[in-house]
Amino acid sequence: MQVLTVNLDDRSYPIYIGEALLSQPELLTKHIRGRQVCVVTNERVAPLYLDKLCESLSAYQVSRVILPDGESHKTLDVWASIFDTLLSERHNRTTTLIALGGGVVGDMTGFAAACYQRGVDFIQIPTTLLSMVDSSVGGKTGVNHPLGKNMIGAFYQPQCVLADISLLASLPPRELSAGIAEIIKYGLIADYDFFVWLENNIDALMRGDVPALSYAVQRSCENKADVVAQDEREGGLRAILNLGHTFGHAIETAQGYGNWLHGEAVGAGMAMAADLSWRRGAISAEELQRTLDLLTRANLPTKAPADMTPAQFMELMGVDKKVLDGRLRLVLLEAMGKAITTSEIDLAMLQQTFDACKADT
Amino acid sequence: MQVLTVNLDDRSYPIYIGEALLSQPELLTKHIRGRQVCVVTNERVAPLYLDKLCESLSAYQVSRVILPDGESHKTLDVWASIFDTLLSERHNRTTTLIALGGGVVGDMTGFAAACYQRGVDFIQIPTTLLSMVDSSVGGKTGVNHPLGKNMIGAFYQPQCVLADISLLASLPPRELSAGIAEIIKYGLIADYDFFVWLENNIDALMRGDVPALSYAVQRSCENKADVVAQDEREGGLRAILNLGHTFGHAIETAQGYGNWLHGEAVGAGMAMAADLSWRRGAISAEELQRTLDLLTRANLPTKAPADMTPAQFMELMGVDKKVLDGRLRLVLLEAMGKAITTSEIDLAMLQQTFDACKADT
Repeated sequence: MQVLTVNLDDRSYPIYIGEALLSQPELLTKHIRGRQVCVVTNERVAPLYLDKLCESLSAYQVSRVILPDGESHKTLDVWASIFDTLLSERHNRTTTLIALGGGVVGDMTGFAAACYQRGVDFIQIPTTLLSMVDSSVGGKTGVNHPLGKNMIGAFYQPQCVLADISLLASLPPRELSAGIAEIIKYGLIADYDFFVWLENNIDALMRGDVPALSYAVQRSCENKADVVAQDEREGGLRAILNLGHTFGHAIETAQGYGNWLHGEAVGAGMAMAADLSWRRGAISAEELQRTLDLLTRANLPTKAPADMTPAQFMELMGVDKKVLDGRLRLVLLEAMGKAITTSEIDLAMLQQTFDACKADT
Repeated sequence: MQVLTVNLDDRSYPIYIGEALLSQPELLTKHIRGRQVCVVTNERVAPLYLDKLCESLSAYQVSRVILPDGESHKTLDVWASIFDTLLSERHNRTTTLIALGGGVVGDMTGFAAACYQRGVDFIQIPTTLLSMVDSSVGGKTGVNHPLGKNMIGAFYQPQCVLADISLLASLPPRELSAGIAEIIKYGLIADYDFFVWLENNIDALMRGDVPALSYAVQRSCENKADVVAQDEREGGLRAILNLGHTFGHAIETAQGYGNWLHGEAVGAGMAMAADLSWRRGAISAEELQRTLDLLTRANLPTKAPADMTPAQFMELMGVDKKVLDGRLRLVLLEAMGKAITTSEIDLAMLQQTFDACKADT
């Protein structure tokens, strides 16, 4: 087992990464300070792991909340249902919420923990590769609004994260790919050596090789923790973690949440960001091609949906949080393994990227 | 004008206290960092002060949200409507929310600011005496849940508070009294000299005398700021601010939110806390009587509703946040001007207090 610490002063916390961690309840219990626990999960994960987790917590008063599965349910109403259980089962301020699931469960549970009685403890047990390498580091919690993703939320750090690689065995291949999209992102934005490692190990990751996945999760979390420690509340640097996300959010919004997986949209979004970076002269044609090849080997899309127009992209990118005072800002590559944010966008080049990155009808 | 600073490291902020402050827009604008502002108010306050405030903000993109008036509307649904306006009018992360109203507007606006895009700036312009001396200091924001008051919220500090005493001229007498309840609380829990000042000046306060009100607001905010600075997130000391609130919340819940004003319920709750403190030998019969007299001169109730049984009190106090791991904790007086929290409650004495503090049928 690897233990990685996310350094955030008095909000620092450990990430445990390894096999069969769910069979080591002491990893959890040493982070639970009260006598009450509320496990929040979803309909898909509950039959797989909920009983096992609850059995290991038999020393506590354990409540269970089972949310509907999927990004379309990441709403204020579903989030509010967590409070109904907490209050009717009389959870007090010393309770601990445990998120057992992917990013949606983690984001909603963390946001519920941030707001229940103005803040209680929570623990993340990510069950998808995406949530292990993305939402488990950084403290971003929240829900969607019909007018925008993640528009309502809080920065709130967990007490610990348990990244049990064994749980990934039950993950559908599409979701494995979606997680690898974010892993590739860390290589692109901050860690060229890791990008090269990914080129050499993508097949092992795709077949679910545990040591390869453990290493990829660890290195991804290290990279993210590094950025987050420097900029917890997204004042500047942290924005580079959004490579591909502004394009990706536009795709997700246009297609309706949940039709494209978040990681798939980010995959296509990174292809678009890499394309625009190449047009700006920041990376070579060969480097662009290596990026597209790696995404393709991870079974990720490198094109936006055929029916999305440039006008639609611009409209949807206009309500994105990454827009400061109405001005479009994008995360682009300055080189392989180095990202920047810029508002100096040549709209003609952007148009060429939209044209080049559109799927054939 | 008095300027009081609430000291909370990088979250410190000033409270401006004085007459006609709404005519000095520079007090606000120096705390607005973006180009967008959203004023949140309610149906009662809007006709009185909204246009005047918006005129002074003509240099900004100003949105308006007018909420229904009253504690019964302090719900997640009404709160969520603030986001509809923010998003449809494209407010970004540099926007500033301005709460123009009483405690309900302040709590909901502050909580919306805490959560919109994971946190934007906000400014409080309290329009009631209660909100000037209570919710404008301390950063408690939130909404009610059918199963408990203020159960969902955040600790979130404003950029500044503008306590314009002139606004109190439009306040109904019942609400003036409700504000004085919290003012009396500061005398009881932490400032005996102020309690004596209140005994000597209660008539001036009750007739709306501006210098007296300004002094009472200032001294109350100083007392609260002092406690909050020592315990921002309610780890211990801060609980003394809840004198009368555990009883008071039970009354509010039993009567339905909004039938008793919060300050009225706290008035009766403080009478009950003082009664129990006397039974424990902490204050003399004469000091109890002085407390009841001062509450009475402020037109505040000193008795619980006739139809509330001890069993109902206990039940309702059981879901209160002040209960730690199922054990009843109460804030009581150790002496006049000094409060403590204790879980050593003699239930027979508590029963006597319920009997003694029940209104005649």
